[in-house]
Amino acid sequence: MPSQFDPPSGTRDFLAADVERREHVLAVMRSVFARYGFEPLETPAFERLDVLLGKYGDEGDKLIFKILRRGEHEASGETDLGLRYDMTVPLARVAAAYGSQLPTPYKRYAIGPVWRADRPGKDRYREFVQCDLDTLGSPSLIADAEALSAQHDVLAELGIADFTIQLNSRRVLAGLLEAFGVRPDIGAGVLTSLDKLDKQPAGDVIAELVERGLAAEQASELVTALTAPDSIDRVRDALKRSCEGTDGLDEVDTVLSLLAGQVRDGRVVFMPRMARGLSYYTGPIWEAVAPGVAGSIAGGGRYDHLIKQLGGPDVPATGATLGLDRILPLVPGGGAAEPARLDVAVTVMRPDLAGPSFAFAAATRRAGLRASVYLGSSSKLGRQLKWASDSGARWAVIYGDQEHEADVATVRDMRSGEQLQVPVGELGEFFAQTPRADG
Amino acid sequence: MPSQFDPPSGTRDFLAADVERREHVLAVMRSVFARYGFEPLETPAFERLDVLLGKYGDEGDKLIFKILRRGEHEASGETDLGLRYDMTVPLARVAAAYGSQLPTPYKRYAIGPVWRADRPGKDRYREFVQCDLDTLGSPSLIADAEALSAQHDVLAELGIADFTIQLNSRRVLAGLLEAFGVRPDIGAGVLTSLDKLDKQPAGDVIAELVERGLAAEQASELVTALTAPDSIDRVRDALKRSCEGTDGLDEVDTVLSLLAGQVRDGRVVFMPRMARGLSYYTGPIWEAVAPGVAGSIAGGGRYDHLIKQLGGPDVPATGATLGLDRILPLVPGGGAAEPARLDVAVTVMRPDLAGPSFAFAAATRRAGLRASVYLGSSSKLGRQLKWASDSGARWAVIYGDQEHEADVATVRDMRSGEQLQVPVGELGEFFAQTPRADG
Repeated sequence: MPSQFDPPSGTRDFLAADVERREHVLAVMRSVFARYGFEPLETPAFERLDVLLGKYGDEGDKLIFKILRRGEHEASGETDLGLRYDMTVPLARVAAAYGSQLPTPYKRYAIGPVWRADRPGKDRYREFVQCDLDTLGSPSLIADAEALSAQHDVLAELGIADFTIQLNSRRVLAGLLEAFGVRPDIGAGVLTSLDKLDKQPAGDVIAELVERGLAAEQASELVTALTAPDSIDRVRDALKRSCEGTDGLDEVDTVLSLLAGQVRDGRVVFMPRMARGLSYYTGPIWEAVAPGVAGSIAGGGRYDHLIKQLGGPDVPATGATLGLDRILPLVPGGGAAEPARLDVAVTVMRPDLAGPSFAFAAATRRAGLRASVYLGSSSKLGRQLKWASDSGARWAVIYGDQEHEADVATVRDMRSGEQLQVPVGELGEFFAQTPRADG
Repeated sequence: MPSQFDPPSGTRDFLAADVERREHVLAVMRSVFARYGFEPLETPAFERLDVLLGKYGDEGDKLIFKILRRGEHEASGETDLGLRYDMTVPLARVAAAYGSQLPTPYKRYAIGPVWRADRPGKDRYREFVQCDLDTLGSPSLIADAEALSAQHDVLAELGIADFTIQLNSRRVLAGLLEAFGVRPDIGAGVLTSLDKLDKQPAGDVIAELVERGLAAEQASELVTALTAPDSIDRVRDALKRSCEGTDGLDEVDTVLSLLAGQVRDGRVVFMPRMARGLSYYTGPIWEAVAPGVAGSIAGGGRYDHLIKQLGGPDVPATGATLGLDRILPLVPGGGAAEPARLDVAVTVMRPDLAGPSFAFAAATRRAGLRASVYLGSSSKLGRQLKWASDSGARWAVIYGDQEHEADVATVRDMRSGEQLQVPVGELGEFFAQTPRADG
């Protein structure tokens, strides 16, 4: 039941454990992207509405969060700004604004939240993080292979063992329609139906194709070619009957050959029926799928005319996006327990001994460990050790009357309960030589 | 002149060099905060308007970016959400929502953008990053000292040599007014005037105090006490005439004694006239100032009743905030040249040699370096070396006809122009043993 203290519908609060899980994944992405020579770009959370509207179709326009004008204009009910809907429209604007300042090609990554006024649901949020990498200004298929390879490396480095990247080309799809004599006016619909072949029985898909206007025999042949055990060979043969199909096959084979030796066999596979929804793709397209996850966990493709359509310069482009929310459950250890907040918890046994305790914590931090002094009001050791335990601390430092007199601190191993006494002046050095709780 | 491609008024695009400068500072903050046992919290970019409105005063309400309702409600012009104005109201909501799930005390940091519909100006933005750390649930002055000390460590670790943290207490201010017989009804105004003593001549401030209702002699005595060479002693003596003043002095001295030995002498100073604007503070307050920077670069204080006023639980609290935009210019090397995007640039001399070149880049990345292959259309070595140079690469890998025949790659030192040949199979190992360009 939503309470007045819940975050707005479709959004989430991330407490420490969640933030750390998410940051771990994002740090791997940033590291991999940088190793491929992609550079970071950050744009504002909102854009002027004229930049956003008309770029995502009528449905998209409705899903943009619109911001009221301010000051004297507020009463008018007019809006002039909208929250970022994706990372591509801001990229097109940046390419137009800073053209000559940007390297050629411009390889950039953008990681950050986007907002969509979608109906919230399971795994569908109104605020979610997109992780995009794009190369503007290169027609080379090496750029496509790089983007795909970078995504592959992210998934592999995160320890996700079981994923497959399905590779195709828009030209293969066009060639397929041509080779099987599908009328151009129903082509898009036919591809949508064929894309369902991994979720629906072949018979259902054939029936849907007939409904869309294909002859029964034609529909059956097409589906057989895409599902038979020797499907890839059949499709390759069929594609050679079409120029567009031959070109598409060349694209797929070039990308596959670039990746050969870099990725495990069977990791990237030619999947001729994969259509990857959006209509703006012009060349290679790919999607990463994992068992048990509906939809794709990553994907991308070449979109040579889109940047111009979005108001940017007329440059060839290819790019890819990773879905943080879909990847997180696949990361090993992703469901781990609450991480330890502290390595060392320092007690404060008497108000007038707070100074030395504060200094012990500081010395411990200088040794690179996470340390805090007790901030509560109890002077009971049991209560303070309970706090140390709740904080996940590996060690507690106790400094009471006896320690004060002997000029030592008692260091308690919170796992074994063993205690030893360390001269006050050597505490920093002691912890500098001690392995961390999470190490 | 603003163009249609500029980001919205008061916001900024951050290209690679800017992102890296900013991320460096934020990474130091996260690391220091974690070492103090603060844990991260992330809340949505927007909150329900009823959570935001009425919390920042009438002026604040006007500065909130309001989001139009969606769908059928859009035409009504009504708003129901607002962009985050600060990190404290979301903290109060989170404390109310997750109370028992949170550790006690709850030490959290929050780093992220906030939005204010202020008139944009020099160094005043509508989207800017706040870096907050707060401790909820501890009345201990150690918590105040920790927050101040963490901020100190951030500034010191960033290499900012010249900064001072001015420490005071709201109780010192109250005691000061009492000791000098200032009427309570004009107290707030008097403090505002006194806070100007480091910017305006003493005479001007005295005149302003008289205008506010102080007797000329009273105003003069007060200003003298706060500016004389023995000011601190005079103020300490005066404060002892007031209970509130004595308590405030104790607070200041406790915090100073906790920090003694941890920070350089003179780094944290008692500054009895420092008022730190906001009225909600109840105990110690502090501000970090640096020569040449108007206003404070960091600050904080205890605010024991605010979380309840903001809709959260009734808990004592203390916290602090760092201003990223004000700190950045002070960081040594902050104005450095464009960072290198690549360590290794790999040429593609013939389309059919793209595969090996792609593999060289992959091997280099596995050695931890940043590498990319040439994505342009020229097959001329000069053009490709120009690209390598523009990318800031330390090394270029050349693989043409001769290298292909000899099964070697030519590695060119981009600084000296020296070249050497490395067997193809040993390239990864070669770069694993080579220092990085930026190392």
